[in-house]
Amino acid sequence: MHRTVELDMTPKTARLLIYCPDSKGIIAAVAGFLAEHHGNILEADQHTDPHNGEFFMRVEVELDGFVLNRATFDDAWSKVANSYNMRWHVYWGNETKRMAVLASKEGHCLNDLLWRWKTGELDVDISFVASNHEGLKEYVDVVGLPFYHLPVVATNKQAQEQQLLSLMDECQVEFLVLARYMQILSPDFVAKYPERIINIHHSFLPAFAGPKPYHHAFERGVKIIGATSHYVTDQLDQGPIIAQSTLPVDHRDTVDDLVRKGRDLERVVLANAVRLHVEDKILVSQNKTIVFD
Amino acid sequence: MHRTVELDMTPKTARLLIYCPDSKGIIAAVAGFLAEHHGNILEADQHTDPHNGEFFMRVEVELDGFVLNRATFDDAWSKVANSYNMRWHVYWGNETKRMAVLASKEGHCLNDLLWRWKTGELDVDISFVASNHEGLKEYVDVVGLPFYHLPVVATNKQAQEQQLLSLMDECQVEFLVLARYMQILSPDFVAKYPERIINIHHSFLPAFAGPKPYHHAFERGVKIIGATSHYVTDQLDQGPIIAQSTLPVDHRDTVDDLVRKGRDLERVVLANAVRLHVEDKILVSQNKTIVFD
Amino acid sequence: MHRTVELDMTPKTARLLIYCPDSKGIIAAVAGFLAEHHGNILEADQHTDPHNGEFFMRVEVELDGFVLNRATFDDAWSKVANSYNMRWHVYWGNETKRMAVLASKEGHCLNDLLWRWKTGELDVDISFVASNHEGLKEYVDVVGLPFYHLPVVATNKQAQEQQLLSLMDECQVEFLVLARYMQILSPDFVAKYPERIINIHHSFLPAFAGPKPYHHAFERGVKIIGATSHYVTDQLDQGPIIAQSTLPVDHRDTVDDLVRKGRDLERVVLANAVRLHVEDKILVSQNKTIVFD
Amino acid sequence: MHRTVELDMTPKTARLLIYCPDSKGIIAAVAGFLAEHHGNILEADQHTDPHNGEFFMRVEVELDGFVLNRATFDDAWSKVANSYNMRWHVYWGNETKRMAVLASKEGHCLNDLLWRWKTGELDVDISFVASNHEGLKEYVDVVGLPFYHLPVVATNKQAQEQQLLSLMDECQVEFLVLARYMQILSPDFVAKYPERIINIHHSFLPAFAGPKPYHHAFERGVKIIGATSHYVTDQLDQGPIIAQSTLPVDHRDTVDDLVRKGRDLERVVLANAVRLHVEDKILVSQNKTIVFD
Repeated sequence: MHRTVELDMTPKTARLLIYCPDSKGIIAAVAGFLAEHHGNILEADQHTDPHNGEFFMRVEVELDGFVLNRATFDDAWSKVANSYNMRWHVYWGNETKRMAVLASKEGHCLNDLLWRWKTGELDVDISFVASNHEGLKEYVDVVGLPFYHLPVVATNKQAQEQQLLSLMDECQVEFLVLARYMQILSPDFVAKYPERIINIHHSFLPAFAGPKPYHHAFERGVKIIGATSHYVTDQLDQGPIIAQSTLPVDHRDTVDDLVRKGRDLERVVLANAVRLHVEDKILVSQNKTIVFD
Repeated sequence: MHRTVELDMTPKTARLLIYCPDSKGIIAAVAGFLAEHHGNILEADQHTDPHNGEFFMRVEVELDGFVLNRATFDDAWSKVANSYNMRWHVYWGNETKRMAVLASKEGHCLNDLLWRWKTGELDVDISFVASNHEGLKEYVDVVGLPFYHLPVVATNKQAQEQQLLSLMDECQVEFLVLARYMQILSPDFVAKYPERIINIHHSFLPAFAGPKPYHHAFERGVKIIGATSHYVTDQLDQGPIIAQSTLPVDHRDTVDDLVRKGRDLERVVLANAVRLHVEDKILVSQNKTIVFD
Repeated sequence: MHRTVELDMTPKTARLLIYCPDSKGIIAAVAGFLAEHHGNILEADQHTDPHNGEFFMRVEVELDGFVLNRATFDDAWSKVANSYNMRWHVYWGNETKRMAVLASKEGHCLNDLLWRWKTGELDVDISFVASNHEGLKEYVDVVGLPFYHLPVVATNKQAQEQQLLSLMDECQVEFLVLARYMQILSPDFVAKYPERIINIHHSFLPAFAGPKPYHHAFERGVKIIGATSHYVTDQLDQGPIIAQSTLPVDHRDTVDDLVRKGRDLERVVLANAVRLHVEDKILVSQNKTIVFD
Repeated sequence: MHRTVELDMTPKTARLLIYCPDSKGIIAAVAGFLAEHHGNILEADQHTDPHNGEFFMRVEVELDGFVLNRATFDDAWSKVANSYNMRWHVYWGNETKRMAVLASKEGHCLNDLLWRWKTGELDVDISFVASNHEGLKEYVDVVGLPFYHLPVVATNKQAQEQQLLSLMDECQVEFLVLARYMQILSPDFVAKYPERIINIHHSFLPAFAGPKPYHHAFERGVKIIGATSHYVTDQLDQGPIIAQSTLPVDHRDTVDDLVRKGRDLERVVLANAVRLHVEDKILVSQNKTIVFD
């Protein structure tokens, strides 16, 4: 089954993400710098956090006509950046991000991501899929991607994480998606991919963190269920939230109904978070996200 | 300002609410009993909880033509009810329920309920409004309802609750609505009105229970906010949930924005819960509601 | 790729759907009949349309213990049914419905249905998939279902419909799903499957009926998009609506964005409509649906 | 009943709205100009319409420290504006907009606007309320605003519009809100307030334009209802859409239920549109809105 990627007519861009202390003139400085180097701004978003005195900006610049490139940008830009004490990243949009996916037994999120990738909706390279179970192998085989079975037991967790890290290094994976992966990654592992591991949790966090959220939702008798996608930190289900959604339920819904209805939420919320990450639309500060969508 | 109640063309009904152990033939027994007494069933809803072996039913019977009435119903019905071990209530719809409202400083929920009552949307009698602050008095005066100022300090809480109970007894209040009332009622008070005190909490419970939920939502960086209406029990924000709703927010929303947007949710969620209670559409079991809407 | 159907623990049931003129005692008669024949009612829903004097009912009866079966039910039941002038259908739940799917070039709805079928979420037999294009063949091959390529040009439309009818007859297909099928079926064809052909239209009908709804939505500058699933009649996009949903959009969304976002709506709305049909939860009257969910 | 406006701690700002042909360097020019004059940018949003080659921008500049003011801004700014062929408006945020409201018999939208105004949520001056009926006078009296009764019959429509125009001129009303006003304003009247008359229509436009949308929605059997706020043009219900929202309904909902549920939508959608207008967050081009919220 081949991948059908539509011919992409979107202009190729560089995306500049900026964090700095708030002060006057930042936008003028950034926009002036880009204009001076013939960079056409396609999108620009900024946000000021007055409480913490922080400034955030995302600028998308058309590469066509821009006189700077990967080799020359950093030097030229550093003067502006330093004068405002900026932390910044630039993403060169003519390179596709590489991601890996971890899953366990539930295939709905994995299958959904594979489908969006296969049809070209999700503009990303998937390096491989790994799982602590073998059940989802056929989903991955059929689209022609590598599948690694990394079963986890009490004694081999560290070794398997090491194995996963090797695979990720080897493939130069930029970020990792946990598509209903039911193992908890170690703090050491997580520390290697800050703001680069995206999880989907099947509740409206912070409610029902931890295992079996649909069972807890049923027991509590809530009238809505939800799904939350967030970056993974070393605090379980406490990382910066990227996207959330809910839908109504009622007393007729069994736990199985919640699970079934929830699948449709989870797929869309996770896919949305992955898309935002791929398009470099997420900034993180103080364990919260600024999403420039 | 006079109350403009539209002429109500809805047929007057009796509403029978039933709880019993599940067994075969209950619906036939109930429907047969009503048919035998010329009661036309306008609505019938039932629910079976297979886990707990419980059966729930709500039947709305047209009073016109029904040969039983308040005086004769109980005797006739008891035989059926006893043979199935039913707990049951019958509400005679030609009598309007009496409710009282407690509020504090925030007027949006109170004002909304008063407006729905004044225009006849909410088919209820409001006996009085009481508050621990005086600020909302003008809302209540203008619609011609009694307003009682019952300020609460550490030393007079019990006395003020006693005063409130006296007012409620005197007015034969059937249920109490907490329209953003910021005091916690004592367990003794709550025990006198089981499943008769409706609260609105400004979060999607069970998340952000307790004070200042919008502040906590802001700090956590959630992408949705919510409101929850529930019956009050002696466990703070833990009672059976009647209605919930959410709406999306993002990083641009300050705490003040959350408060502003949340008001529109709270008003609608509370009004909906009050309407369901007034129409006898809520059954409670195991700290959960069955809502036959 | 094999189908993984979870072991279904749901009790097998018969589902009785009733339409008749409204009168007193219907529920008692139905429930009494079932009780008399030891049929345990698992779910019962009814609806009265006071304007048209119509009564609608759906009853789900546990087969275990029920003393009637496919061979004996009709005779026994006819007396009750005739005395109330009922139109009625009974569906024996121990037989799985057979459906066929038509698609064109867009694969998201087809793929979604196949996935729900393959995982056992959708309790249905898919007899075959047919398309006027070949592009989606690989989706169908991979799950091991028959795929028929029935290209349509001006001169062969009638012949291809005849071919389709033959396939459907041969496979005893009960209903047909148009998963973004871009051809209009002839009135003759439609007349053979009344309330048995389910379409998904990519707008909130009645707005943007006909071709290219996302383009029209973009041109009109709406702030929401929608999807509508309905039974097909001989009036294009005018049949009884089964399910609808919307989501917010804004000025930043291009037509391509509307198409992308809309896919997530369409899949869920269509899948929901198919589920409701499979569970015999839809009654139709006066070009409107009563959905007992 | 006095108006309780919270002390507003939001910094006073000027809001600059810009429309021009798209070209490189606009953002740099605008931001550079503001920086040069010590204007701190609090918010900046822009949008490019690649199809029509149009550029849109909204900048909010803190007045504190800004060396330009109402008297000096235009001259200084014109050089930048002219070099990019800009159409532009600047709103000086230390002046509150003046609005008037028209209503007929339904009071829910009017009452809601009055409440948001009275509590200070809506930062606007309401000059007066006018109606072709007298029924809503008491709502207006109680908050101390002028109420004008302008009954409309076939023969006096022009005269009453003239009367309304005189009132608006006299009060220097900036924009007009139609809070369920059931008369159609003449093209001459509308032409005097382009993009300054906001209507609420009780359907998800373009569906159910014109009178009695809830009746038509009921007859069509839709599963959602909606509300749409738009600027009024001389084409009925065809003006640029500002905000829309929907909610689910089902076969149990009578027309009266749709009307009741719809009220909660209409109030919120209209209030939101009015807020966006007041905050100068709406640009209009090609009969569509760009909403910078």
